[in-house]
Amino acid sequence: MTARKDPIAFYFDIFSPFGYLASTQIETVAARHGRTVDWRPVLLGVTVMKIMGMKPLTEYPMKGEYLQRDMERIAQIYGVPFKRHGLKGHNSLNAMRSFAWLKQRDPALAVAFARRMYERLFVRSLDITPVEACVEEARHLGIDGAELAAAIASDEIKQLLVAQVNEAVGQGAFGVPFFIADGEKFFGNDHIPMMELWLEKHAWR
Amino acid sequence: MTARKDPIAFYFDIFSPFGYLASTQIETVAARHGRTVDWRPVLLGVTVMKIMGMKPLTEYPMKGEYLQRDMERIAQIYGVPFKRHGLKGHNSLNAMRSFAWLKQRDPALAVAFARRMYERLFVRSLDITPVEACVEEARHLGIDGAELAAAIASDEIKQLLVAQVNEAVGQGAFGVPFFIADGEKFFGNDHIPMMELWLEKHAWR
Repeated sequence: MTARKDPIAFYFDIFSPFGYLASTQIETVAARHGRTVDWRPVLLGVTVMKIMGMKPLTEYPMKGEYLQRDMERIAQIYGVPFKRHGLKGHNSLNAMRSFAWLKQRDPALAVAFARRMYERLFVRSLDITPVEACVEEARHLGIDGAELAAAIASDEIKQLLVAQVNEAVGQGAFGVPFFIADGEKFFGNDHIPMMELWLEKHAWR
Repeated sequence: MTARKDPIAFYFDIFSPFGYLASTQIETVAARHGRTVDWRPVLLGVTVMKIMGMKPLTEYPMKGEYLQRDMERIAQIYGVPFKRHGLKGHNSLNAMRSFAWLKQRDPALAVAFARRMYERLFVRSLDITPVEACVEEARHLGIDGAELAAAIASDEIKQLLVAQVNEAVGQGAFGVPFFIADGEKFFGNDHIPMMELWLEKHAWR
């Protein structure tokens, strides 16, 4: 008899480069500890920054440059492709609505979609903002583009995403990537080793 | 013939709990890589936050609670004593001036003083703000208290600290703990493993 272990909650936003980087690692990390991953949407710009009264961290003097460098070296350490996209004014609202819609129907497909959108932005440097961008990536996964476009224009899906983001905020997810594993919270790629220590042996009280 | 290896620059502020935690590890980390540590003063409240337009991170909604928890678990992982002091309105200006004065005369003694002040605040929960607090800890190290009090009241030492903090800011030290090793910058306790990877083999470009 083996006890079922809870999945790791992975809070992500397609907008976030650090979220992208974490997305390339989290499934492997989870599998190493016999866990699965529950991908949960966050909207950094729309919700979290407003609650916290903060700008995106990359816009702060000094910290911004540091974080740009940090992204690049993390990508090299992970051995994953990463490019500065140089886009301005983009947002992930349609992408995250698409994710929320897909997750209701097929969580694995939703994750595949999120990965494509991350890759679109942080590897191929293409905009993720318009509905058409979501439709284009979705079609590569065999998803009906017209159906997706209709879904994310609906109040039902808009409200679903709002509810999920509010829930994430209620859980304390103030940034991305954010993880909750067995009740313990971890923020940032560089907390993944600490999370692994927690998963291994609940190494602190 | 062995090439002399540069010290690791360790930017710290007695005010910072994360700085305290890092101070318990940095010498061991450096020694593991054949390095010494150059302790360099930062004033988070006076300078850095103003430049960045930020409050102390622990005062941000959601993030504050997370960081409190993070301090406690890092202390447990490191196996070092750590208590919430519960003090308000304290500052490290006199302590950091004392450090700057001592470092001119005897860098090792200055580090010993910084350690005592960290311990005073984060283990013994005593205020570090008044000159008397600095004098009391300095006396335990055989430092002349009256001489210290006179030194940190002097314009020369005040300006020395300002110059050193400005230099730290110029180097990009936007928070504490901040490390520079062979030209590469690392922020936070959880970047120490990445710094070790850098020291081992300059693992990225």
